[in-house]
Amino acid sequence: MGSGGGPSGRTGVAVLGATGYAGAELVRLLLAHPGVEVVVATSDSHAGKRLDQVFPHLSACPLPLLPTSAPPEEVAAGAEVVFICLPPGLAMNLVPRLLEAGKRVIDLGADFRLRDAGQYAQWYGQPHSCPGLLEEAVYGLPELYRADLGRARLVANPGCYPTGIILALAPLASWPGVDWSVVVADCKSGVTGAGRSPSPGTHYPEVHDSLRAYNVAGSHRHVPEVEQELGRLVGRPVRVAFTPYLAPMSRGILSALYVRVNPPPPPGELDRLFRERYAGEPFIRVLDPGELPATAHVRGSNRCHLAVRVDGRTGLVLVLSAIDNLGKGAAGQAVQNLNIMMGWPEQAGLEAPALFP
Amino acid sequence: MGSGGGPSGRTGVAVLGATGYAGAELVRLLLAHPGVEVVVATSDSHAGKRLDQVFPHLSACPLPLLPTSAPPEEVAAGAEVVFICLPPGLAMNLVPRLLEAGKRVIDLGADFRLRDAGQYAQWYGQPHSCPGLLEEAVYGLPELYRADLGRARLVANPGCYPTGIILALAPLASWPGVDWSVVVADCKSGVTGAGRSPSPGTHYPEVHDSLRAYNVAGSHRHVPEVEQELGRLVGRPVRVAFTPYLAPMSRGILSALYVRVNPPPPPGELDRLFRERYAGEPFIRVLDPGELPATAHVRGSNRCHLAVRVDGRTGLVLVLSAIDNLGKGAAGQAVQNLNIMMGWPEQAGLEAPALFP
Amino acid sequence: MGSGGGPSGRTGVAVLGATGYAGAELVRLLLAHPGVEVVVATSDSHAGKRLDQVFPHLSACPLPLLPTSAPPEEVAAGAEVVFICLPPGLAMNLVPRLLEAGKRVIDLGADFRLRDAGQYAQWYGQPHSCPGLLEEAVYGLPELYRADLGRARLVANPGCYPTGIILALAPLASWPGVDWSVVVADCKSGVTGAGRSPSPGTHYPEVHDSLRAYNVAGSHRHVPEVEQELGRLVGRPVRVAFTPYLAPMSRGILSALYVRVNPPPPPGELDRLFRERYAGEPFIRVLDPGELPATAHVRGSNRCHLAVRVDGRTGLVLVLSAIDNLGKGAAGQAVQNLNIMMGWPEQAGLEAPALFP
Amino acid sequence: MGSGGGPSGRTGVAVLGATGYAGAELVRLLLAHPGVEVVVATSDSHAGKRLDQVFPHLSACPLPLLPTSAPPEEVAAGAEVVFICLPPGLAMNLVPRLLEAGKRVIDLGADFRLRDAGQYAQWYGQPHSCPGLLEEAVYGLPELYRADLGRARLVANPGCYPTGIILALAPLASWPGVDWSVVVADCKSGVTGAGRSPSPGTHYPEVHDSLRAYNVAGSHRHVPEVEQELGRLVGRPVRVAFTPYLAPMSRGILSALYVRVNPPPPPGELDRLFRERYAGEPFIRVLDPGELPATAHVRGSNRCHLAVRVDGRTGLVLVLSAIDNLGKGAAGQAVQNLNIMMGWPEQAGLEAPALFP
Repeated sequence: MGSGGGPSGRTGVAVLGATGYAGAELVRLLLAHPGVEVVVATSDSHAGKRLDQVFPHLSACPLPLLPTSAPPEEVAAGAEVVFICLPPGLAMNLVPRLLEAGKRVIDLGADFRLRDAGQYAQWYGQPHSCPGLLEEAVYGLPELYRADLGRARLVANPGCYPTGIILALAPLASWPGVDWSVVVADCKSGVTGAGRSPSPGTHYPEVHDSLRAYNVAGSHRHVPEVEQELGRLVGRPVRVAFTPYLAPMSRGILSALYVRVNPPPPPGELDRLFRERYAGEPFIRVLDPGELPATAHVRGSNRCHLAVRVDGRTGLVLVLSAIDNLGKGAAGQAVQNLNIMMGWPEQAGLEAPALFP
Repeated sequence: MGSGGGPSGRTGVAVLGATGYAGAELVRLLLAHPGVEVVVATSDSHAGKRLDQVFPHLSACPLPLLPTSAPPEEVAAGAEVVFICLPPGLAMNLVPRLLEAGKRVIDLGADFRLRDAGQYAQWYGQPHSCPGLLEEAVYGLPELYRADLGRARLVANPGCYPTGIILALAPLASWPGVDWSVVVADCKSGVTGAGRSPSPGTHYPEVHDSLRAYNVAGSHRHVPEVEQELGRLVGRPVRVAFTPYLAPMSRGILSALYVRVNPPPPPGELDRLFRERYAGEPFIRVLDPGELPATAHVRGSNRCHLAVRVDGRTGLVLVLSAIDNLGKGAAGQAVQNLNIMMGWPEQAGLEAPALFP
Repeated sequence: MGSGGGPSGRTGVAVLGATGYAGAELVRLLLAHPGVEVVVATSDSHAGKRLDQVFPHLSACPLPLLPTSAPPEEVAAGAEVVFICLPPGLAMNLVPRLLEAGKRVIDLGADFRLRDAGQYAQWYGQPHSCPGLLEEAVYGLPELYRADLGRARLVANPGCYPTGIILALAPLASWPGVDWSVVVADCKSGVTGAGRSPSPGTHYPEVHDSLRAYNVAGSHRHVPEVEQELGRLVGRPVRVAFTPYLAPMSRGILSALYVRVNPPPPPGELDRLFRERYAGEPFIRVLDPGELPATAHVRGSNRCHLAVRVDGRTGLVLVLSAIDNLGKGAAGQAVQNLNIMMGWPEQAGLEAPALFP
Repeated sequence: MGSGGGPSGRTGVAVLGATGYAGAELVRLLLAHPGVEVVVATSDSHAGKRLDQVFPHLSACPLPLLPTSAPPEEVAAGAEVVFICLPPGLAMNLVPRLLEAGKRVIDLGADFRLRDAGQYAQWYGQPHSCPGLLEEAVYGLPELYRADLGRARLVANPGCYPTGIILALAPLASWPGVDWSVVVADCKSGVTGAGRSPSPGTHYPEVHDSLRAYNVAGSHRHVPEVEQELGRLVGRPVRVAFTPYLAPMSRGILSALYVRVNPPPPPGELDRLFRERYAGEPFIRVLDPGELPATAHVRGSNRCHLAVRVDGRTGLVLVLSAIDNLGKGAAGQAVQNLNIMMGWPEQAGLEAPALFP
C-alpha cells in the first residue's frame, strides 16, 4: 500500500507530541496500519526517553523521543506526513516550515480549525501567526470534506466535541423548518478529553463516581468551531447552547442534541434521512430503531453511533451520538484523513472493532 | 424528640421493602435518627433472613425480615409511621388498610404521585385500586408543600428525577417570559436508580466505563410526574423533553435544564431569584457564581446543589442540579418528610455531610 | 495466509457460545485476523438474533446466531476449526463428534484441562463423558507446549487465573531451593471473569468502588489446574494457596506470587532467569527493573507483563504478572493456539497494542 | 457530653492540615460529633479561603483556613485538642510547643509512630527533631492500647495499611506455632491513600480500570511500623513481605495476610479465637463463616471487617480485613482515640453505618 519511503516500503510519518493521549493513540493506530511506519516521535516532557518507556502498552515502538522544539524540518526528516498533537499556539509556528519542506501536515490541535483569524485571537488569546494558511487548511471531517481532503497539504483535524455534534446534526442541514438559532448540545466526555497533565480536577478521587459540568454557557473553545462548521453547512448562522461534562470514564463522548423543528417531522422520516445521508460511510452507523448509542460500543474505534428521535410532547428532535474522543474524536479521524490524503482504502488500519467491554 | 412509643421512647417505624436500595438507605438514615426506632422491616426476596445478613453495612440492625405479603396492619404493628419502598402497584393495595389501622404512610414508590387515576392507568398499565386517596396524598417535596406535609396521613415521596428537575425549575415559575411548552431536561443518573435486581443492562461490565441514554423521547414514567407538578406550580401546561441516562457511578443525578426565556434575564438576576426562593431551605444550596455542581459533593446526603446561568449565544437559561438519587431523591427526602410530619427539626437525622470523595 | 476454504480463501472457523464475553472477544479478534473467516456462531440465549444485534461493537459481523444445541457437525459445517466457549460440562458432549467430523477443536472452557478424569469429577461435580480424550488434549499454553500444539486435534485453552500464575512461576521451575509445597497466589480479576450472566454479585452498584475476595482457601476450580501444570513442570507436587478477588474493573488479572526460596537468590539473578526463559516469546514482556505491571497496559491484548523481586526482609520471591483475562487469559491465547496449529505466524491477528488508557 | 469550652459547651478542637483527604474526613466526622466544635482549621495550600469553598460537601463548615505555618500555639488558640494531618516531618516541629501550651495532640501523620529515632531517620530521610517524645507517644490503635490512650497527651494515629494488617494479625499473637519470620501482607488500597496532590500516577485515566502494585519488596514506609507493633505484640521479631496496590476505587483497603502455622489450626478454632479477641470491640466485626469482607461494606465508617480461614492444601492461615483507609485507617480512628482520651463513649460521632452502595 505504501507510496514509497524507507526499507519497509511504508510511508514514513512523524508524530509531534507523542506522549499526550491523542499522540499515543495515534501511534497505537499507526503501528497497526499496513502502509505506514512511524519514523519520528517527539515529546518535550519526555525527550530522551523511549516511547515504550513512557507507554508500556506501546512496547512495539521503542522509538527515541526527540524534543519537539528542534527545527521542525529536521525533526521531521524521513517523514512524508507529519501529525501534530500539541497544545494551542504551537502548531502554527511549526506548520509553515514543514509545508515549505514539502511535508503534508495533519494537525490534531486547534490552530487551523477556525477559518477566521479574529475568531482565533478572541478564543485562544493570541494573534494567529500564519493567518494566510487558514484558508488553505481543510477541516478534517471526511463526511463533510472528503473531496477536499484528497489534495490537502494541511488538514485541521476537528475537535472531539465538534465531531460528535456535527455528525449528529449534519443530516438535518437540508431539512426544512429547523430553528438553527437555538440548538442545545449537552455532551458528556470521558476524562482523557482533559489531557494527560495531572490537575486537581482530574485527580482520580475527585472524578471517580462523580459527574460534573464545566465551561458552560458558551465559554468552551469548541463553540466557535461548531458554529462555524454548522453555519457553513446550513448556510446561515447557527447558535449552540453547549454544555460539556466530565464523566467518570476514560474514553467516550455521548452527545445529546435538541433541535426545534416546525413542523415536527413525521415518524420515521428522520431515521430515513440519517440513513441516506450516511449510506456508504464506513465509520458511521445509524442504529436500529430499538437501539441507543453507548460510548463503550465505540471504545477504541473510529466509529460513530447515531440515533434520532422525535419527542412527541415537545416536538423537539433529539439526536444522540457516541464516539471515542481519542478515536473518531482525534487519532482515529486523523488516520482516516491520512488514508484519504494518500489515496488508500479509507478503512486501512481502522478495521478493528471497538473493545467491549 | 420521640413522640412516644416503645421502651426506647422513640417513635416506632416500619420499612416495607427494606432490601432494595431505597429501603436500605432509609434504614441507614433511620439508624442515625435520634427520634426513631425501626421496629419492622420486610422483604419478599429475603424474608427469613436478618437485615444485617443481606446488608453487611447495616450490622447495627439485626432485624428479622418479615414477608411484605403478610397483612399490612399486622406487619406494621408497633409502628406509628410506615415507609413503603415497593415496585409500582403494590403500595396501593396496602395503604388503605394501613391508614385504617391508624398508621401514617410515606410511600417512596410511584403509586400516589400522579393525582389523576387515568394518568396512572396509562403510565403504569393498570387501573388504580384506590383512586379516592390520590387527592388526599401530599406530594412529598417539602420545598413546595411543606405546609401540607405537617398534617398529612399519606405522603407520596417524589421520584428521583422529578426531585432534581422540579427543584431546578421551581424558582422560574414566577419569572416572566418563560416558554414552558418546551423544557429540555437532560438527566444523568447513577446505577442505583435502576434498582437492585440484576439485569443485563446493569451487569457491571456492561455499565462500567460507558454512558448511555434510555427511555428517551417522553417514554419514561417520570415525565407525567414532572409535568403535573410543574404545571401546578406555573399555572399552565408544561411540556418536558426528558432524556435519562445511566452513568457509570453508583449514586447521584446531575440534571441539566434548558429553558427559553424571552427576553433573556439580565446577568445576576436569576442567581438572585434562586437565592431568594431557597433562602432558609436547609438542604438546598445555590452555589457561588464560580462553582458548578458535582454529584460527589452531595453523595449520601439529602442536599441539592444548584447553579443557574444564561447562555449568551442563545439566550437559553441553563440550570444544573445535583442530588443523590437515594438521598434527596428517595430516602433522605422521606426522612425530611417524616420530620415535618412529626413536627421535629427538619434536619434531624440528616445533618451528616456528604461522603466525599 | 489461509490454508483453504471458502470464496475468501480464508480458513473457516466456528465459534460455539459466541455471546459470552470470551466468545465475543474471540470474534472481535478473529474479525481482524488475516487468515480466518468466522462462518458460524452459536448462542443458546440469543439464537435467532444476529451477532451484531447482541454486540453493537461487532457491527462488522452480522452472522445469524444458531442454537448451540443443534448437532455439532451440522453446526460446524464449513468450519475447519471449532472454538468452544461454553460452561463446564457442555464441550465434552460435543467434542467427540466434532473430531470424528474431522474438525480441530480449541476449547476455551474447562472440560479438557484436567488430565485426570477423577479430578474432573471431583471439581466439576459430574463424571467426564469422554475421559479417553483427556490424554490427547494439549494444554494450550504455548510458552509450555508450543511443540505439541502444532499437531494437536484438541486444545484445552487454559483458565484465566492459571495463565497468569503459571507464566509467573514457570521460570522458577528449574531454580534450586524453591519450596513448592507452599506457594501463595493472590490474584485480582476484573468482573468479565465472572461471565456475562447477571447476578447479585456482579450487579453494578455491588461491585463498583469495592474489592472483595471469593472462593478462598482452595475452593476455586482453577486450583487443580494450576497444581497439575506446575507439578508437571517442576517434577514434584506443588501446592498453591490461591485467593481470587473481584476488582472494580472490567478486564485484567494482576497476580502476585510469593515463593520461599532457600537460599534467597542473589539480586539480579532472577531478573536474568526470567529474561532468558522468555527470550523470543512474542507476548511475554519482562519489565525493566524500575517498572511494575498494571492491568491497563495489557488491556485488550494477548500480552503478559512480568516483574520479579526478592523481598529483602523475608527472603521471599515476589512475582507479579498482568494479563487481560479475556486476552492472554482466554480469546487471545486461543488465537495464538490457532496460529500455531495452522503453522501461521504466531502473532497473526494479535499485533494490535493494548488499548490504553 | 462536652467537657467545657466555648458558648456551645462543646470541646474546641483544631485540625491542622484540613484540606488533605484525612483532614477533610476528620472535619466531616467532627461536624457530626455531639461533643466537639471545630474552632480552627489550617491549610497552607488553601490559606485565605474558607473550608466550604475547598470542599463543597462541607458546606456546614465555613471556617476560614489559616496558614499552618503560623505559630502553633496561636493557631490552636481555643482548641483543647489538636489534630495534625500533615506530611512527614512537619508535625515533629509543631508538637513540642503545642504540648507546652497545654494542648493534647492526635497526630494522623507518621512522625510519632516509630518508637526508635534511628528507624525514623532511616525511613524518612531526616533526623527526628524531638526524639524524647517518641517514648511518650501512644500508638493510637485502641484495640491494642486503649488503657494508655485514656491519659495520653500525644497520640500517634496509626497508618492506614498498618491498621488493617495489625487488626488482622493481633489475635494470632498468642497462638502457638506461628512462623512470624515470614508473613505475607498483600494489601489493596483505594486512591485516596495516595493523598490529594495531583500526580501522573493518580491522574484519573491512568488509574481507572487498572490495578497495579507499587513500593514492593519492603520499600514502603509502613513496613517498619507494622513490624514494630507486631513485634511488641508477639514478643519477638516479625518480618513482613508487604505488597501495596493502587486499586481503581476511592476508599478502602482490603488486606490479605498469609501466615504459616505449624501444626495448622483445627477448623473453627481460629474463628473462635478471633471472636473472643474482639468481643466487645465496637468497631470490629468478625464476619459469619459464609461471609467475606468487601471494602464497600465499611466505606465511610470506622469499622473493620475480618474473616479468617485455613487453606487446606498448604496449611497456611489466611486472614482478610477490610477498612476504609480514611475511616478506621485515619480520621475515624482519630475520633475514636479522641473519645477515649476524653472519657466519652467510644462510639460518639462514629455510629453512622457505612455508605453502601
